Amino acid sequence: MKKINTAPLSGMQELLPNTQALFNKLKQNIVDTYHSYGFIDIETPIIDRTEVLLAKAGGDTEKQIYKVIKTEESQDAADQALRFDHTVPLSRYVVQHQNELSFPFHVTQVGRNFRGERAQKGRFREFYQCDIDIIGREKLPISYDAKIIACIYTALSTFNLPKMRIRINNRKLVSGFIKSLGLSRLIEQISFVIDHAEKVSEEETKKALRELNISEENVEKIFTFMHIHGDIDLVEKELDMILQNKSDVKEGLDELRQVSEILSAKQLSNVFEIDLMIVRGLDYYTGTVYEVFLDDYRHIGSISGGGRYENLCSNFSKQSFPGVGGSIGLTRLFYVLQENQFIKEEANFPINFVIMPLSQNELIKSFEIADNLRNKGFTVDVDMGYDKKLGERFKRANTISSQAIVIGESEVEKNEFTIKNLVTGETQTLELA
Amino acid sequence: MKKINTAPLSGMQELLPNTQALFNKLKQNIVDTYHSYGFIDIETPIIDRTEVLLAKAGGDTEKQIYKVIKTEESQDAADQALRFDHTVPLSRYVVQHQNELSFPFHVTQVGRNFRGERAQKGRFREFYQCDIDIIGREKLPISYDAKIIACIYTALSTFNLPKMRIRINNRKLVSGFIKSLGLSRLIEQISFVIDHAEKVSEEETKKALRELNISEENVEKIFTFMHIHGDIDLVEKELDMILQNKSDVKEGLDELRQVSEILSAKQLSNVFEIDLMIVRGLDYYTGTVYEVFLDDYRHIGSISGGGRYENLCSNFSKQSFPGVGGSIGLTRLFYVLQENQFIKEEANFPINFVIMPLSQNELIKSFEIADNLRNKGFTVDVDMGYDKKLGERFKRANTISSQAIVIGESEVEKNEFTIKNLVTGETQTLELA
Repeated sequence: MKKINTAPLSGMQELLPNTQALFNKLKQNIVDTYHSYGFIDIETPIIDRTEVLLAKAGGDTEKQIYKVIKTEESQDAADQALRFDHTVPLSRYVVQHQNELSFPFHVTQVGRNFRGERAQKGRFREFYQCDIDIIGREKLPISYDAKIIACIYTALSTFNLPKMRIRINNRKLVSGFIKSLGLSRLIEQISFVIDHAEKVSEEETKKALRELNISEENVEKIFTFMHIHGDIDLVEKELDMILQNKSDVKEGLDELRQVSEILSAKQLSNVFEIDLMIVRGLDYYTGTVYEVFLDDYRHIGSISGGGRYENLCSNFSKQSFPGVGGSIGLTRLFYVLQENQFIKEEANFPINFVIMPLSQNELIKSFEIADNLRNKGFTVDVDMGYDKKLGERFKRANTISSQAIVIGESEVEKNEFTIKNLVTGETQTLELA
Repeated sequence: MKKINTAPLSGMQELLPNTQALFNKLKQNIVDTYHSYGFIDIETPIIDRTEVLLAKAGGDTEKQIYKVIKTEESQDAADQALRFDHTVPLSRYVVQHQNELSFPFHVTQVGRNFRGERAQKGRFREFYQCDIDIIGREKLPISYDAKIIACIYTALSTFNLPKMRIRINNRKLVSGFIKSLGLSRLIEQISFVIDHAEKVSEEETKKALRELNISEENVEKIFTFMHIHGDIDLVEKELDMILQNKSDVKEGLDELRQVSEILSAKQLSNVFEIDLMIVRGLDYYTGTVYEVFLDDYRHIGSISGGGRYENLCSNFSKQSFPGVGGSIGLTRLFYVLQENQFIKEEANFPINFVIMPLSQNELIKSFEIADNLRNKGFTVDVDMGYDKKLGERFKRANTISSQAIVIGESEVEKNEFTIKNLVTGETQTLELA
């Protein structure tokens, strides 16, 4: 027999059953919250046309995409690839089915995406993304931006994490500010420097700005700008001190104020702040942008992010579909939470009861009790290993459950059954009614 | 702008939201049933080593597999491919993690698999399979075969389908019978003919047997054999009439009897029968095999199948991991059920309530009511399209929900809210307590 490597490929997250159960529980919490906010499921194919997936992309995305070839029909080679996010397939879906959708379309997509990134600890090539998006036709009020952020925060709150902070900014404010300095031609480059400021030293940030041939005065102003954070009134006040022309940032500030007011009304004042350092790299954002961090663990990076894109479908349609979305990268988040021991598996047993008939004679009765418990919504395993020692069977039971019911001749006779707690050793009489 | 085709690729099932909700509901019913029977989730990567995936395969599988290439690291080319079923990755998983699993390992996998089949109506290249398997070490009692069948039947029963029939056979009985005719060398070929008998005429079946150079007497016996079906006693009696040597089929018959007894004890006597025509094409089955059909719609083919394989991991390990499993091919099944109008989408609204504030002034109150309802487990959409006409907003609401709550100035003032049923027009006062 040829020796075959049975490890999963590098970059793949493969979990043991009890850990998988925990992962699935977190995923279900997210999905339930998304549904409760009125988001509706869709699923797009994992394999799509390369020209669709790469319609806008470039750079890393193009390098990291997994292309797909079929042996039988090789003429398809390189025409097909695996989706690398949910946003591109969603924009295709919206254009394709626009006449059958109801707008603003509240949609959630939870599934695996694929990127052939270089192997690196905590980076995955196959990963779950849990997305919500709201897509409008022609117009979409800014209030929906707040809805996305509130929903994402509610979903993450189900995880029992350390204190979170939502940091919110608006691209129009960033570009308006840069414009007010007379540096419109450098919007992209300056945004890039702001986006990276948290990962490098203050000196390096200033150096990067100077390398763009910006005057020392403007370097200082940009540096001050990116460090402004707080509530909307404070931000406005601090901005006033470095601005010549308020009209350049008016639209961005107005939108931030609207988002702030709704989030405050939703009792989230202690959780979010306006933070002008948040830019988000991806270039399709056009207004609100947000990221969520664990306040005392900023070094692990953002645990969710998203924002407003005025032109979701511009690669596929001339019509306007403004949208706003947010995403939780669950595979990476789960890894980070485990590494930092924020989530524990203690006593996370997927099965409620293990029923252990002592011989085949008690099998029918065992099935009866099992079905009875299943109908009440419990998960039940009937262990049929009569040939094994009872101790061994208890040991197995305790790997998947904390409760066992042993059924022997006398139990069947008396029609009395005892639940044994495998952790505490306590016993309890089973009430079948 | 270059015109890009926004249709999904051929062979992909892409559903509209309300249909997706129905699909997900059926999927959830299956998963809940699997869990209730004590099966535990795992997820294997979608991308795996080609040598793992094709360790045993050959023929069609090899032709249909999707290979994956990464642009960046082209040295990986053709070393990786998309899984085409759950069974092969499961066998890798069991070998890889054997020391951390508890046996008999009750496992369920629900996810998408990939086969580049030729495009054909009702055939999909990306498809959900909902699998359960029980894997033992060295030994696995036959009673577990019955557990798989009972669980699959219970899962399918949640669909409200027309009457189902579970047809059960045992490979040992088939090969034992062929052996008893002195035709051991033709076990594979004769099994193939039996497996296809339902798709061709009786004459064609006999012709196919004659082409194997089998005596006319044996052709008749095999033909009689494959048409035997009924309860275990009847099957045994009819077998007696064409058998010289009962010992050749003893083991197969014994196993079938054990499975029968358990299923009868589970009140399934009216639902299953022993049917010697069921063989199942895949060559890894070694004992029990079953298929489920809709009794009055056999032409749509089996809606689930599975069986016993004594040597799941033989390509990856010298140890013995006997297993038994069953699978529901949900993507194809869903398509078939829709085509035959066995499932309907009528009034399948994914959202419980749409709340419609008449202006931004009622937004905060609307959020409050929405959060209140969400905490009670309802799914709620807050429609913020104040700029639209009320009629238009009602129309939108009714595409996703059957209940709307309009909130205007007077409602906020009186703190009284009315639920309007969008289907019947009835109204009802909302009790917030």
